[in-house]
Amino acid sequence: MPAMTIKLFEGRSVEMKRELAEAITRETCRVLGCGPEAVDIIFEDVKKENWATAGKLWSDR
Amino acid sequence: MPAMTIKLFEGRSVEMKRELAEAITRETCRVLGCGPEAVDIIFEDVKKENWATAGKLWSDR
Amino acid sequence: MPAMTIKLFEGRSVEMKRELAEAITRETCRVLGCGPEAVDIIFEDVKKENWATAGKLWSDR
Amino acid sequence: MPAMTIKLFEGRSVEMKRELAEAITRETCRVLGCGPEAVDIIFEDVKKENWATAGKLWSDR
Amino acid sequence: MPAMTIKLFEGRSVEMKRELAEAITRETCRVLGCGPEAVDIIFEDVKKENWATAGKLWSDR
Amino acid sequence: MPAMTIKLFEGRSVEMKRELAEAITRETCRVLGCGPEAVDIIFEDVKKENWATAGKLWSDR
Repeated sequence: MPAMTIKLFEGRSVEMKRELAEAITRETCRVLGCGPEAVDIIFEDVKKENWATAGKLWSDR
Repeated sequence: MPAMTIKLFEGRSVEMKRELAEAITRETCRVLGCGPEAVDIIFEDVKKENWATAGKLWSDR
Repeated sequence: MPAMTIKLFEGRSVEMKRELAEAITRETCRVLGCGPEAVDIIFEDVKKENWATAGKLWSDR
Repeated sequence: MPAMTIKLFEGRSVEMKRELAEAITRETCRVLGCGPEAVDIIFEDVKKENWATAGKLWSDR
Repeated sequence: MPAMTIKLFEGRSVEMKRELAEAITRETCRVLGCGPEAVDIIFEDVKKENWATAGKLWSDR
Repeated sequence: MPAMTIKLFEGRSVEMKRELAEAITRETCRVLGCGPEAVDIIFEDVKKENWATAGKLWSDR
């Protein structure tokens, strides 16, 4: 029952998400001792104009 | 003042969202005893390639 | 696969949450045509001092 | 280390987001006494058909 | 209708949250041209043992 | 700049969170090719009475 959301910059490939979901699920099961079917991961693609750090949009850097 | 987010697979029609928002608001008011104007619902459409269960993207099933 | 979060003021009883989870799941399955085991709901209890509307904390009203 | 998400109706300009991110970061640092690089803000654009208040979608108003 | 969540380290005083909610609401209304009653802010207190940056819990620093 | 939230049942030890944060950060950097300081993880402890699947609270199972 861990439920994860992962916000990352738009543009990451499906291949990267596939590999990342697989690796995070494996590590989560190993550490928490749960079955893989309990792990739910949702990726959220964020445009650089929608993410600001230190008061500055990443699209402006 | 309940504030809800509902993540669901992309592709659900506006009609479904309209009916679901209406039904969930009605049930929430009935159970919690609050007025409908207090209930805020946000739907988030998730692509199947952005949702993984058991380490596997739903777009790969 | 709808995954819901419901933020509500701290202090709601387990009975209310039980009834609300049951009702929302039933309505969701009816409208979306999914099975109940696909519906995941997480309640988040929010203190009144942690929720502000119109710039004013609810604990100050 | 405050991390913020701001859900707002789709259609706000990048200029508004830029100005809002700057202002919120400045006020946060002033009140909390933290450095600007600690403030992370993510905007989430929400379609009016994905936001309901009082059981009614904003696209239906 | 902006709805905000602000995650910050546990231990911030109610006075700080009160002042921050007031300031952020004021700036949001100024920039977006909305009324204050449209702005909803939820603070989420996070324990240092529940926040990791660079793979390290803040409680371990 | 991936920012993650991980909701899990209350009661997991700090040791588990420490190890999980370390492992997820390492895998994320490997797959996405980012530096560890870009990875932010927030754990959210959820009581079993606050999590429902299939319309049933986990505290009732």
